[in-house]
Amino acid sequence: MSEKKAVVLISGGLDSATAAAVARAEGYTGYALSFDYGQRHRVELEAAAAVAQSLDVREHRVFRLDLRQFGGSALTDANIAVPEGAPGTGIPVTYVPARNTVFLSLALAWAEVLDAHDIFVGVNAVDYSGYPDCRPEFVQAFETMANLATKAGVEGRGFRIRAPLIDLSKADIIRTGTQLGVDYALTISCYDPDAAGRACGRCDSCRLRAEGFRTAGVPDPTRYR
Amino acid sequence: MSEKKAVVLISGGLDSATAAAVARAEGYTGYALSFDYGQRHRVELEAAAAVAQSLDVREHRVFRLDLRQFGGSALTDANIAVPEGAPGTGIPVTYVPARNTVFLSLALAWAEVLDAHDIFVGVNAVDYSGYPDCRPEFVQAFETMANLATKAGVEGRGFRIRAPLIDLSKADIIRTGTQLGVDYALTISCYDPDAAGRACGRCDSCRLRAEGFRTAGVPDPTRYR
Repeated sequence: MSEKKAVVLISGGLDSATAAAVARAEGYTGYALSFDYGQRHRVELEAAAAVAQSLDVREHRVFRLDLRQFGGSALTDANIAVPEGAPGTGIPVTYVPARNTVFLSLALAWAEVLDAHDIFVGVNAVDYSGYPDCRPEFVQAFETMANLATKAGVEGRGFRIRAPLIDLSKADIIRTGTQLGVDYALTISCYDPDAAGRACGRCDSCRLRAEGFRTAGVPDPTRYR
Repeated sequence: MSEKKAVVLISGGLDSATAAAVARAEGYTGYALSFDYGQRHRVELEAAAAVAQSLDVREHRVFRLDLRQFGGSALTDANIAVPEGAPGTGIPVTYVPARNTVFLSLALAWAEVLDAHDIFVGVNAVDYSGYPDCRPEFVQAFETMANLATKAGVEGRGFRIRAPLIDLSKADIIRTGTQLGVDYALTISCYDPDAAGRACGRCDSCRLRAEGFRTAGVPDPTRYR
């Protein structure tokens, strides 16, 4: 039986670490892909490397593309402030235009070269972040497109976009990852961590994460500043 | 009435120059996007800049992302030779995995930031190159995905992926562009041009182009070496 390969997108955050752990638990050999896209926080990439190593991936690549060339988001544009306080309504300013589309497209390119047919991504639609590219209908539409776009798709060796967290609450994600041995101390969720990787505890992402650990009844290993 | 903006993908080739000319003829303000993706031939980017300037675009950006990090194609991998002679059957080795998916994803990101809603791309399915990501079903699937992926799509200001050449023969493309004032002397189609931008005259792409000019009855301005 040939090796089952999967490209696993790893951001350094809690969700993608959990999705990658699911891939490992299903017997896939992981090829981890992260993006150096001009995000403000270099500690995310350090976290991604630590997570990838902890999950025994075969290889970890950091693909460079500078989305700051386009701007338009608080996460890539130094002229837009990251909001604090409770989550608002609508799509937040931390939305990066077409980010998951771009990342999945590059994952697809690598998957095709590797002859991998599964791409694991940690998107989640329940604790809804307001990002349109985290919804199941987006994931399904991307998969359909991917199978029309590629040589492998046309030749019948299709791709699956695996989003194992899509229906899970943050607490369920944490419970799942904890069972699968994810070391969440390695992960960073904060939109505004300090240079040592310590979280602010105030942004939307910190609040969702802290509440997730509380609800899951799992000790929160997050380092706050 | 507000300005009509379009992102126009310009590769330096004949097809994308024609698609961009169609956008101009329809009254769009063009925002040209090219990719420095590790292609072997730097003259393509020089041609893209010349084409963009000749078509009066508002701005021309060259986005850098190195697809050689993934390999897998004769056009990006120095270890795979570009074939000569008549087109073969099947998908050729010059196929770059998921290339149009990646390029359209980045065009989508820029379009969303610009508040542009049309993306013009010179893909063509008639003189079929064997590339799966040049077929109408791919273009349609990408558009569907794009409108689920983005803030603009969700909020009802949807995107259209415009592929005005998709049903045209190479001769019809050349006739269309000639009527719209495209200067094809600026464009390069050859898979293996020399450093001065002169074409080999032997590769698949050169053959299709030369035949197109002959059939269209338009003088061929291509510089051969």
